[in-house]
Amino acid sequence: MPASPIRKLVPYAEQAKARGVKVYHLNIGQPDIPTPDVMLNAVKNINMRVVEYSHSAGIESYRRRLATDYYGAKCGIDGLTHNDIIVTTGGSEALYFGLFSCLDPGDEIIIPEPLYANYNGFANAGNIVVKPITANIENGFGLPPIEAFEQAITPRTRAILICNPNNPTGYLYSDEELQTLSDIALRHDLYLFADEVYREFVYDGAKAKSILEIPELAQHAIVIDSVSKRYSACGVRIGALVTRNKDVIAAALKFGQARLSPPTFGQIAAEAAIDTPDSYMTEVIAEYTRRRNLLVEGMRKIEGVVCPLPKGAFYVTAQLPIDDADKFCQWLLESFSYNNQTVMLAPATGFYATKGLGKQEVRLAYVLNETDLKAALVCLEQALKEYNHKA
Amino acid sequence: MPASPIRKLVPYAEQAKARGVKVYHLNIGQPDIPTPDVMLNAVKNINMRVVEYSHSAGIESYRRRLATDYYGAKCGIDGLTHNDIIVTTGGSEALYFGLFSCLDPGDEIIIPEPLYANYNGFANAGNIVVKPITANIENGFGLPPIEAFEQAITPRTRAILICNPNNPTGYLYSDEELQTLSDIALRHDLYLFADEVYREFVYDGAKAKSILEIPELAQHAIVIDSVSKRYSACGVRIGALVTRNKDVIAAALKFGQARLSPPTFGQIAAEAAIDTPDSYMTEVIAEYTRRRNLLVEGMRKIEGVVCPLPKGAFYVTAQLPIDDADKFCQWLLESFSYNNQTVMLAPATGFYATKGLGKQEVRLAYVLNETDLKAALVCLEQALKEYNHKA
Repeated sequence: MPASPIRKLVPYAEQAKARGVKVYHLNIGQPDIPTPDVMLNAVKNINMRVVEYSHSAGIESYRRRLATDYYGAKCGIDGLTHNDIIVTTGGSEALYFGLFSCLDPGDEIIIPEPLYANYNGFANAGNIVVKPITANIENGFGLPPIEAFEQAITPRTRAILICNPNNPTGYLYSDEELQTLSDIALRHDLYLFADEVYREFVYDGAKAKSILEIPELAQHAIVIDSVSKRYSACGVRIGALVTRNKDVIAAALKFGQARLSPPTFGQIAAEAAIDTPDSYMTEVIAEYTRRRNLLVEGMRKIEGVVCPLPKGAFYVTAQLPIDDADKFCQWLLESFSYNNQTVMLAPATGFYATKGLGKQEVRLAYVLNETDLKAALVCLEQALKEYNHKA
Repeated sequence: MPASPIRKLVPYAEQAKARGVKVYHLNIGQPDIPTPDVMLNAVKNINMRVVEYSHSAGIESYRRRLATDYYGAKCGIDGLTHNDIIVTTGGSEALYFGLFSCLDPGDEIIIPEPLYANYNGFANAGNIVVKPITANIENGFGLPPIEAFEQAITPRTRAILICNPNNPTGYLYSDEELQTLSDIALRHDLYLFADEVYREFVYDGAKAKSILEIPELAQHAIVIDSVSKRYSACGVRIGALVTRNKDVIAAALKFGQARLSPPTFGQIAAEAAIDTPDSYMTEVIAEYTRRRNLLVEGMRKIEGVVCPLPKGAFYVTAQLPIDDADKFCQWLLESFSYNNQTVMLAPATGFYATKGLGKQEVRLAYVLNETDLKAALVCLEQALKEYNHKA
């Protein structure tokens, strides 16, 4: 696995900090939102003599509450039972179990790009071939045309994977786009994987539809989920693989048994998280809406920047008036500062499986408070002026 | 992956319990020993606003303390630094990172059998070929002769994997045997993996030597570790991959980055575990010594049983006067009871990669208290009488 373009920048960020420069981190998806008290308190109040393995599919009471109280009551996904859920060590492990259960080495999976870079990592580990289909910034990174999927399908294609709402673009697929994907999956008998970890992070009154709500996809839909972003609890490492396909659950459970069990403390926190008051999520969404609006408005005021207004997640992928995002992002940390401050961005080249794409694009995560976001925007505007003057 | 012989028995155990029969679980490695208070208190006393990702290689303070205070001061393994350690989600993930970092699909790994069944699971996931070498109960499952290794080595062989002290046999390799393994590994330029999670569980004054103590193996030795058994904390899911080979660390870290980070709460507990008072481990070892002696003496009194006296871990693999361990273990749960009690054992067939081996053998975990162990032995003796009469 090659090192990602973001990780290559880390030493430059450390050097900048060592020089006393303040670095605004727009590059990572680690939210600054507090973890709900119900989660932290559940862990503080543990009462156990032995920290035992849980069931390999996860603590049963947690899976039951997920099925009824979270997916059912909160998300409106009817008819799931605890047997349709395998609790995993983060969304990462759900992806690993899902891919390894459904695809053999040499099999192909179609993923719209730009894409979450770790999809490549897990596919590589299983010698699974990623076939990217390119989405374009001009239409805000909407679903590529159906012809692009049809052209990419070969006899080795087993699955399509989407992330909805999307990392790194923030794009929220419409009901029509999901229906198009469903039609393709059924026509070619492909699994449709959806990474729905940003489900709650939708703005302007939008709703993220789950592929589990499409009745005809029952045997084809596999959802990757995680509590990491939902409750700002990345470190608990609790996710889930959710599907009504019993064969996939059975195969994934064997991978689950090989690794014994997901973390017990994390599951205790995640089960408690189901009781997070609705007001918590309402406040978080209001906060992210303000941040998104501030960031996008600010970006659009900078000359030469193309910045969509995404409806979901907490990322935007923007086009900058630059020649090479990797070089520019390194230069920001290595050679630039304004009022002793600079910004760290994620070059979009790391989010494309097709080599050579994304060279003018960067991903920005709006996980900073509004004051810091404003300061970061001032830095970026100055940096673009200076970078283009020096060139 | 096929379901293991132990898991096939689970429904029969549930049925026995539903009939009101008490089942003594000698089949699993879930200790009944209390988790140290320092671990539980560290989690109860967490003070954080956001449960963030940790470093992908694990919290730095934990890795530093592991290197100096645990591996250095407690284990006598000198010269390790935090850069030689990747904290993993249980020993399982350390095995996964190690195998996937060092072996390609189609590569071969030599493992003495009987072997921990999940080695097969992770090897299969990576399309890595397990080449078993059979150890024999006659010499207590000591290292197979060097000729067996030489014969098993092919151009695709990349590694040897041992578990020391051993699961499922309890065998503790001697210094001479470890030197033999080191010589083979160096002569053929193979990685030597050692699963040392039972390091502390050694009896009769013995010491488990780590392969990290063999200077000439510096670039070949890879240790799989875990706090699960050591501190009776299986549910915290914290392990480690430890090696002085920088290329292996770099490759494993990429797998670590793909899954983002190990669990934060578990790491907090595991770091605190380093301060577990020595008296805790002394008492635990004394307890396991009594249990081992009781179990082995009891087994040896039963007609037709062959039971080695192992020096480590908390398992014995014994030979019973039966035709088929899978059938016998199922019969114990399905058709037998004595004073409304029965025992659950692990058929050894699941611990052999060579088909047809282990049909007269079972693994017994002495993770029950002495009263329960005595009752289980009475049951087993009665069961063997009855089983052989009925046949």
